[in-house]
Amino acid sequence: MSGNTFGKIFKLTTFGESHGIALGGVIDGCPPTIEINELDIQKELDRRKPGQSKYVTQRKESDKVEILSGVFEGKTTGTPIGLLVRNTDQKSKDYENIKDKFRPGHADFTYQQKYGIRDFRGGGRASARETVMRVAGGAIAKKVLEKKGVIVRAGVMQIGDIVADSHNFSDVSKNDFNFVDKSKVKALENFFKELIKDLEVGTGVDSVTMRGSENRDIISVDGFETNNSGGILGGISNGDDINIFTSLKPTSSISQKTTTTNIDNQKVDLEVKGRHDPCVGLRAVPILEAMAALTIIDQMLIDKAQCFDVERKS
Amino acid sequence: MSGNTFGKIFKLTTFGESHGIALGGVIDGCPPTIEINELDIQKELDRRKPGQSKYVTQRKESDKVEILSGVFEGKTTGTPIGLLVRNTDQKSKDYENIKDKFRPGHADFTYQQKYGIRDFRGGGRASARETVMRVAGGAIAKKVLEKKGVIVRAGVMQIGDIVADSHNFSDVSKNDFNFVDKSKVKALENFFKELIKDLEVGTGVDSVTMRGSENRDIISVDGFETNNSGGILGGISNGDDINIFTSLKPTSSISQKTTTTNIDNQKVDLEVKGRHDPCVGLRAVPILEAMAALTIIDQMLIDKAQCFDVERKS
Amino acid sequence: MSGNTFGKIFKLTTFGESHGIALGGVIDGCPPTIEINELDIQKELDRRKPGQSKYVTQRKESDKVEILSGVFEGKTTGTPIGLLVRNTDQKSKDYENIKDKFRPGHADFTYQQKYGIRDFRGGGRASARETVMRVAGGAIAKKVLEKKGVIVRAGVMQIGDIVADSHNFSDVSKNDFNFVDKSKVKALENFFKELIKDLEVGTGVDSVTMRGSENRDIISVDGFETNNSGGILGGISNGDDINIFTSLKPTSSISQKTTTTNIDNQKVDLEVKGRHDPCVGLRAVPILEAMAALTIIDQMLIDKAQCFDVERKS
Amino acid sequence: MSGNTFGKIFKLTTFGESHGIALGGVIDGCPPTIEINELDIQKELDRRKPGQSKYVTQRKESDKVEILSGVFEGKTTGTPIGLLVRNTDQKSKDYENIKDKFRPGHADFTYQQKYGIRDFRGGGRASARETVMRVAGGAIAKKVLEKKGVIVRAGVMQIGDIVADSHNFSDVSKNDFNFVDKSKVKALENFFKELIKDLEVGTGVDSVTMRGSENRDIISVDGFETNNSGGILGGISNGDDINIFTSLKPTSSISQKTTTTNIDNQKVDLEVKGRHDPCVGLRAVPILEAMAALTIIDQMLIDKAQCFDVERKS
Repeated sequence: MSGNTFGKIFKLTTFGESHGIALGGVIDGCPPTIEINELDIQKELDRRKPGQSKYVTQRKESDKVEILSGVFEGKTTGTPIGLLVRNTDQKSKDYENIKDKFRPGHADFTYQQKYGIRDFRGGGRASARETVMRVAGGAIAKKVLEKKGVIVRAGVMQIGDIVADSHNFSDVSKNDFNFVDKSKVKALENFFKELIKDLEVGTGVDSVTMRGSENRDIISVDGFETNNSGGILGGISNGDDINIFTSLKPTSSISQKTTTTNIDNQKVDLEVKGRHDPCVGLRAVPILEAMAALTIIDQMLIDKAQCFDVERKS
Repeated sequence: MSGNTFGKIFKLTTFGESHGIALGGVIDGCPPTIEINELDIQKELDRRKPGQSKYVTQRKESDKVEILSGVFEGKTTGTPIGLLVRNTDQKSKDYENIKDKFRPGHADFTYQQKYGIRDFRGGGRASARETVMRVAGGAIAKKVLEKKGVIVRAGVMQIGDIVADSHNFSDVSKNDFNFVDKSKVKALENFFKELIKDLEVGTGVDSVTMRGSENRDIISVDGFETNNSGGILGGISNGDDINIFTSLKPTSSISQKTTTTNIDNQKVDLEVKGRHDPCVGLRAVPILEAMAALTIIDQMLIDKAQCFDVERKS
Repeated sequence: MSGNTFGKIFKLTTFGESHGIALGGVIDGCPPTIEINELDIQKELDRRKPGQSKYVTQRKESDKVEILSGVFEGKTTGTPIGLLVRNTDQKSKDYENIKDKFRPGHADFTYQQKYGIRDFRGGGRASARETVMRVAGGAIAKKVLEKKGVIVRAGVMQIGDIVADSHNFSDVSKNDFNFVDKSKVKALENFFKELIKDLEVGTGVDSVTMRGSENRDIISVDGFETNNSGGILGGISNGDDINIFTSLKPTSSISQKTTTTNIDNQKVDLEVKGRHDPCVGLRAVPILEAMAALTIIDQMLIDKAQCFDVERKS
Repeated sequence: MSGNTFGKIFKLTTFGESHGIALGGVIDGCPPTIEINELDIQKELDRRKPGQSKYVTQRKESDKVEILSGVFEGKTTGTPIGLLVRNTDQKSKDYENIKDKFRPGHADFTYQQKYGIRDFRGGGRASARETVMRVAGGAIAKKVLEKKGVIVRAGVMQIGDIVADSHNFSDVSKNDFNFVDKSKVKALENFFKELIKDLEVGTGVDSVTMRGSENRDIISVDGFETNNSGGILGGISNGDDINIFTSLKPTSSISQKTTTTNIDNQKVDLEVKGRHDPCVGLRAVPILEAMAALTIIDQMLIDKAQCFDVERKS
């Protein structure tokens, strides 16, 4: 797919396929003199890395990031920041047997139709691995935001029917499920024990959801009394926490056999090998943080451009 | 707010406030020789017009559209299409009493903070009236899509707790609620009878929702067996119907009195006059069609650009 | 042509044909609380208006501009500014006899080939009248720049072989040729006397020229010793005057008869009626100022976005 | 500088500094199934490489390009193409003595002022080396254009006072000056003999020039009788050759000593070491071809998007 640039002022452009030579990205428009090094980015990449617990794919993604430009003597210079992660553990042979088949729930069929060609190895560009560079770019966005006092944090709030009762972001790093309510960890462990026995994630929830408010929030002299708006009114942040709720569809690559069609539109059997996540939500946390950070820094810089003269009550 | 251009190839740029002189738009990048006249656009505008039933705001929006450029002897020329709708029934005086107050659930507070100034009349730019030009632009997008055999239709599927059992788009124009299931019309009438007695819409649903699939869709030689993906895989349409589900938060402008703050951060009483919709969903149907049409035509033309040489099985 | 949006943060989108209903524009991204009224814009439009001296086309372009949005109680609000100028003196009948013919040096041929249709009246979109909205948008850009101490001024420096010896911008408004050296006015009057006897402008100069420097400018503690760079180094302004030199090709619409082809690729005679400028450079001055102002304000705001934290020696 | 993305549909994003770790680029929006390999790109990079004759800088730029993504089994897939060239011969120590000084004619001063920081080694981002990725991206653009029958070629037409009498593009590769008229080679050799004795290039010509036409081109049934328009009318190509003339300012880095200011605005002596081109024009040929190819392919694809239905006489 084209359209791999995200943002207008703080722009992230990415490239790279699941089983290609490398994944890369360019941050263009980053403010200068921000201290940034490879460790800042590596830290975030390690959070999305699979193989960290038994609940995520065992593929080894070492994901060593390299900063190629735009940083001089430890500080950003205002020029484009080139980022590179070489692919190392790509076992392309796992995919030879499905090179002409369309896996259901994946983009194999649509890429083949749209472009007349596709990299069939691991989904090619349409792979969760595409998010490596979003996380890398988001790490830089978070550094800029932190300097301005803006903190971005994500956590899992529901898996299947198990819903968090409280939202403690400090719990997130303390359990294998990135869950915001540690009292639910036992229940989640039991849930996943069954899941790894080839079951799909429960009921399937809405995907890509950004919840708004069901009630108007009364404004008092001390601020908003509630935050049903999620911190945004008329597309502008109101100073409250910005809350974004996202639901993910269950993974399509599961071990169960199925039938499908191949490139010649014939019915064929399909068994997807390779290593996959039973629940993509677990690894989504750093990715969501990255996308939120990229969105916010871009809007913040656009605001600096248009409204540089506006005096605001803090 | 800046950022009033939508699309990359088929681009809609809009301007205009609720109670300003006029609303306008520019379609840039429209294919040439498409037959289009003001009636095509007027027809869609009339569908979003308030005052058509007792369930929507009684403000008279005559919304006479004028094509100012880009159409010559009844056909598009490939040059930008200028569109204009003058505001006629704007009763600005209704808003004088709230000019320094921030209405809860509206963008009054955020616009004032961001820009240090705002047009307080009817929400200014942050008004449902901003959608007039989306509908006008969408009308042109729909004309181009129709020529290519693509039909875009929206309908209401749930209001409060009342959910459609069947989805018949032919029912939409036959009832005051734009509902896709005419068997529910009686229940809706009863629901609205109470609503107009100053009650808020029931439970408040998620807003801006695009549902994905909970199950992978098996691919057979005759096509997809199910359509849980909503017609999109990996960001590319798969030839099936594209289904988009959107939820709307309840209107914030209701007649109940409340307290709020004013521009000097003092506590004040607020009573919102003016004419408002008890349920914004009823008038959202043509707006959603417009935004869907604009999104699809833009992606279709971007595909023509990059993939002009690809041979596809139809 | 598509691509009618200019700028990234301070964006001007324009529409309208020479002999259509109206010309219009949208400024999106203008900083808020800038005092602007229709007179500010009208003043600039009047400078580009033809019929002001015997040396420019006698077409009456009253060009009354109307601000439709984005300005509230005399100040910009940060929302898009809609601008409108209705066409009034368009004598479309002048063009009936050339509707199927391609005028040499004009875009008739290329528009017909690209789009398969064209508005033949006065060049349609490919008319000098397209610049009306550039001047209008530039008027707003100049207001914002003035508030920041930036002045934009253009003047004519050469016509045919007559070259200005000195560059006094205060001379520009004092002669019919917008010339920066009033000592040359007599020579210019003689030159034009002949020109109006159906001769083309002399030697034809390079067009769309932005001259750089032939010599590196020595930097002293008091600033640059010379300004051969034109005020720009590596794409960044250096604090010196920014000098831009532009050359214009002679007008293609002259009264001499010629042969050409028509829409069926047959040889035909052509005589262009209508009212045209013998020298387009005379009216280019406000247009060049507008485009320079639009370019500078956009870059200035982009700089505010990325470099808001940089401390600079003034 | 930000703004490192060029194009709207066929987009090139670049990064990298003269003496940094690597230069890289991303082509987003390339049509699929185009045969492309590293040799196609390498061939073009070798043409811009310095050290090929005694008339260009002796810096060794091996410039080995690597394709990192977007090409599968020798063909483009429609996904972004990542390109990488590692810097190998960067002698950063050459620049230690000028790290706090502003070289005249270079962007040292403006980058320092704009960003408050700069990579002083070899001009950092504001180096001719920035064009490596333009040439690499242009190589891919040329491959797509060739498939459509469009050829892009550049050559040198004037150096100092020596002007080509004829324009034979086949001469370009046959002399060290990339000159389009081989009868002038002897004169150029004599000219450069003196130039390398520390003299600046002659008179300094206008820079960044795109010449238009001084005369309207008569249209006959067999095509345009002349091509003074340069092949473009009203911003649309007319089917004739598109001719673009560009002039380059002389190099600013010469061996002559000078005075300048340093970062604390004190007067200091400056002697620029390092290896530089006596005449940048010689190596500009592949760069100009690349930028022309990138511009044309982008416009061609935008035309495919908007005008896919237009039937044209070939």
